[in-house]
Amino acid sequence: MIKMAVLGFGNIGSGLVQLVTENADIIEKDLGCKLDIKYIVDLRDFKGHPLENKMVKDFNIVLSDPEVSIVAEMIGGSHPAFEYSLAALKAGKCVVTSNKEVVANFGEVLLQTAKENKTAYLFEAAVGGAIPIIRPMRESLSSDVISEINGILNGTTNFILTKMISEGMSFDDALQLSRDLGYAEANPSADVDGIDSCRKIAILSALAYKTVFPCDKISTQGIRQISKRDAEDAAEISCAIKLIAHTKKMDDGKILINVAPRFTELDSPLFAVNDVFNGILVSAKASGDIMFYGRGAGKIPTAGAVLADIAEIAKHMSCGQIPPVLWKRDDGEGLYDSKLEITRFYCRVKGDKIPENASIVSRKDGQSSFVTPVMDEYQLNEMLKNFEIVSEIRFMK
Amino acid sequence: MIKMAVLGFGNIGSGLVQLVTENADIIEKDLGCKLDIKYIVDLRDFKGHPLENKMVKDFNIVLSDPEVSIVAEMIGGSHPAFEYSLAALKAGKCVVTSNKEVVANFGEVLLQTAKENKTAYLFEAAVGGAIPIIRPMRESLSSDVISEINGILNGTTNFILTKMISEGMSFDDALQLSRDLGYAEANPSADVDGIDSCRKIAILSALAYKTVFPCDKISTQGIRQISKRDAEDAAEISCAIKLIAHTKKMDDGKILINVAPRFTELDSPLFAVNDVFNGILVSAKASGDIMFYGRGAGKIPTAGAVLADIAEIAKHMSCGQIPPVLWKRDDGEGLYDSKLEITRFYCRVKGDKIPENASIVSRKDGQSSFVTPVMDEYQLNEMLKNFEIVSEIRFMK
Repeated sequence: MIKMAVLGFGNIGSGLVQLVTENADIIEKDLGCKLDIKYIVDLRDFKGHPLENKMVKDFNIVLSDPEVSIVAEMIGGSHPAFEYSLAALKAGKCVVTSNKEVVANFGEVLLQTAKENKTAYLFEAAVGGAIPIIRPMRESLSSDVISEINGILNGTTNFILTKMISEGMSFDDALQLSRDLGYAEANPSADVDGIDSCRKIAILSALAYKTVFPCDKISTQGIRQISKRDAEDAAEISCAIKLIAHTKKMDDGKILINVAPRFTELDSPLFAVNDVFNGILVSAKASGDIMFYGRGAGKIPTAGAVLADIAEIAKHMSCGQIPPVLWKRDDGEGLYDSKLEITRFYCRVKGDKIPENASIVSRKDGQSSFVTPVMDEYQLNEMLKNFEIVSEIRFMK
Repeated sequence: MIKMAVLGFGNIGSGLVQLVTENADIIEKDLGCKLDIKYIVDLRDFKGHPLENKMVKDFNIVLSDPEVSIVAEMIGGSHPAFEYSLAALKAGKCVVTSNKEVVANFGEVLLQTAKENKTAYLFEAAVGGAIPIIRPMRESLSSDVISEINGILNGTTNFILTKMISEGMSFDDALQLSRDLGYAEANPSADVDGIDSCRKIAILSALAYKTVFPCDKISTQGIRQISKRDAEDAAEISCAIKLIAHTKKMDDGKILINVAPRFTELDSPLFAVNDVFNGILVSAKASGDIMFYGRGAGKIPTAGAVLADIAEIAKHMSCGQIPPVLWKRDDGEGLYDSKLEITRFYCRVKGDKIPENASIVSRKDGQSSFVTPVMDEYQLNEMLKNFEIVSEIRFMK
């Protein structure tokens, strides 16, 4: 029997407990032994809860119990999630997590600690919810050369943008609907301002290029400024607008990473990724374009990804260690200037005039919209210096 | 340094040699050591070839060389690929393959032998070319309950069907074009008659349900009978026609597996999988719908998948064994009668009449086409007993 502890009995934590209980037979068959949740660590009281006998408030009970070999950190936020994870790894326990904030901010420390203690730090659930993406990145694509990654990594924003394009809803109405359906938090900033997507692309980029960058140095733009007119114009030229998290290794060795809404054309596999689904398009030298698609959030799908990590650890207990993954931290010097990215732009300006070389999209309500040729943002600013800009949205390429 | 042998210097075999050479630096970084191809086994002469010094004709040289720890079987066909693989595993060597025929026909023997000899038999490249699907199935989804899999697993047929739908080409013209582009073999039967897709779904089904069935017991239909009129009618109701390989665990515990062209609706993630791309949609209890998309064939993409298996083996050499995967063989008793599958059907009959309850699609050239309500094939036959049937194509559901 393998004994584990769940830290944090919130949304994902309770989903994991539910899944381990419901899938007990499948899990036992898969692992070759039973998986037992010995402790649930949470500061809150759960008087009368059927699992009350497993509830503890003091993490040290877990830490000092040699029977516990796996710790599932589902606390969220950086602290004390980081400290607890570090302590567990140093105590020789394996740690699995869905906490993208900790992985993006402290992954390099935790991975190194896991390696030194011959244990494992796994985080499949931190990116793409139910979608297997971390494991394929670290195993299937590790000997390939990844040229770039483009991902729809946030389900809430994708839901909002889908409603704006396909049903003509305003941003505010679509946001409210996503709240009503339980997708958006009361404070939706991490989603709609791109912060959540930024953490996730920082992690994917670290896996691809073995270097992690601070999230506050990564150019990040959300979707608050997307208007109905933008959405109408996109539909007019058979595009969708998607919040794309992007990372690419440039010729000079620097890494371009940004999060921005982008006009996405019909021929992109990401075009048809709608509603709360996520899609991650990995472009690699040998493998070509590979897309991973599925539910990017949700209690049970995300818990399923955590369970996959637990299963991998359990299976390796009898036959050896999981090959370690490591990356280093760069304070931002290795980042490529995002404004130098060469792409086309959708722009809308006041008045009837548009720049030469641009293709008109629509001209109404005193505003003209158009698509520029490929250029960087400095060139765009130069081109538009005599225009009154209302909107500016990148293309995928 | 890790030394390996490549069996078969054909399309994939030479692609693997090329990739190992070109990616040598990346591979060394990823594995922590060099990967060396010590032997290339092929019965043909390669006089004057730059790699002539590695070429041998006798597989026993590989078998008896204790330095060789990995054998990449790229021979194709069942024999002697099976015997060579078995001998290599018994000699304690790891075997990787792209050979779907051997995996579908002898996988259970080779996997059991690998387990007994504490070695590994990996076959990522056997299904979906460059797409990581075997590894996610055996690792990420192993503790989840897979309800069904629907896959576009053959690039050539998908290319032909895409051309028929989007450009109105006939089957024969589209097949010729796919030959001209190097996708279809001179004898395209394995592709267009669904045999290739059948082997692949047999493997995916074995991973999902731990049981493999003989390919000749699996209901398999190809795309030769798809006509321009079928394609026009599909487009008329916003459907694509896709050759879908399908497996599903039914309520009675039996497994439904079949390969058939199907009307695929706009809301399916498989709808937009076009040209030579493959898409594999896995539906699981916790994870929901997950789709894997990418290049299903091609020398270098497929070699990339083989290289991923080699990398996994190499990384485990220093830290333990790869957790084994096993499945058992069933001679067909556990197969669900494919004709009992409940679905809608597209049908075309001679004359102007269509059955009650059916929805008309088109009525021209003396033929009427329609979509039936959901029913099984026996019910369909009963419904159409007084009609002269020209075409009958399943829906996805």
